Amino acid sequence: MKLFSFFNSSASYRVRIALALKGIDYQTEGINIRAGEQYHAEYLQHNPVGVVPTLIDDSGDAIGQSLAIIDYLDRRFPAPLLLPQEVSLRAQVLEIAFAIACDIHPVNNMRILRYLTDELQVSESQKKSWYAHWVKVGLSAVERLLEQSNSGNYCVGEQVTLADCCLIPQWANALRMGCDLSDYPRCQRIYQHCNTLPAFIAAAPENQPDVIPA
Amino acid sequence: MKLFSFFNSSASYRVRIALALKGIDYQTEGINIRAGEQYHAEYLQHNPVGVVPTLIDDSGDAIGQSLAIIDYLDRRFPAPLLLPQEVSLRAQVLEIAFAIACDIHPVNNMRILRYLTDELQVSESQKKSWYAHWVKVGLSAVERLLEQSNSGNYCVGEQVTLADCCLIPQWANALRMGCDLSDYPRCQRIYQHCNTLPAFIAAAPENQPDVIPA
Repeated sequence: MKLFSFFNSSASYRVRIALALKGIDYQTEGINIRAGEQYHAEYLQHNPVGVVPTLIDDSGDAIGQSLAIIDYLDRRFPAPLLLPQEVSLRAQVLEIAFAIACDIHPVNNMRILRYLTDELQVSESQKKSWYAHWVKVGLSAVERLLEQSNSGNYCVGEQVTLADCCLIPQWANALRMGCDLSDYPRCQRIYQHCNTLPAFIAAAPENQPDVIPA
Repeated sequence: MKLFSFFNSSASYRVRIALALKGIDYQTEGINIRAGEQYHAEYLQHNPVGVVPTLIDDSGDAIGQSLAIIDYLDRRFPAPLLLPQEVSLRAQVLEIAFAIACDIHPVNNMRILRYLTDELQVSESQKKSWYAHWVKVGLSAVERLLEQSNSGNYCVGEQVTLADCCLIPQWANALRMGCDLSDYPRCQRIYQHCNTLPAFIAAAPENQPDVIPA
């Protein structure tokens, strides 16, 4: 399999965690989204939307959208299962995953921040406030969901799920942007624990072949 | 079952379509998000995030996030199945659903538009341009995905899926906001067809008990 990925795209990072957890061999092809490579004609044939990541599976089919890719991987390579079968646990996992993937990530990604700067001419400090505001609203919500799920080392239950695959990249992004994360002890515990696991280490931005040193 | 819903919240609308397709009896409890009712203490007990919709199932458990609710309903009430079991079709359905639910809806919902006005003091015309821009970027992407899936009356295959449950509310929102939708003939065909089906009619904003006349 091949993954079109950008080292610090958090959607790519989610999929890399899932691939590593499942022990799937794959080749990384870096798509530099800062330089606009996601809009090159050759890439758009695989991903007509022009976003990363895209998985090319072992029969050559292309799949976009990180959560669709992880759902696909979970069905083809069920060990370890990232989406529980039991309906109540599954609903908890998905609720947390979507609270991150729908409510936090999309409003703070690169294209939005660029629009704020380029089209709305907001100042650097207004842009930072925007970012910090949606991280705060979003992680406060996730922290409350983790109280409900009675999280420990993982968001739900005693093993990694899709929710952790979403939380760790989001947390890493917020850290990198200098957000105050002291109000989310449940998130922090999960981040610290998961980052000791080989799959999460292998998937981290700094360990990717296409890393661009800061 | 009970659904906490707001008549023209498109996330609520998605779930109403799924409930109607599956013929599930439920009671609607309107949460007026314009008036901030999603932040009332009583509602936050069901939905700690403070968003609509929330489903209270027949054992009294609360589930938030529209796509998590539909996944849950699909497992408990599989007829008609909105998420295909076959891996390739399923990936196509999810890719389209997430292209709407992650890439379009979150950047144009009420809280974002209010932040633009209240915090960034953007003009009414800049706010309209923002809205139209993300609709254009997003629906162009969906239209290209529909070319790949060879859509007809539905996004994928010959029956309603989760992708249609996401597309119709998004399209209705864009229409309501006066966006130019002439460039998306595949989306338009699906919208026109689905709106002839009883479940989509029953789920429409104007047919909800909590409707607020324009």
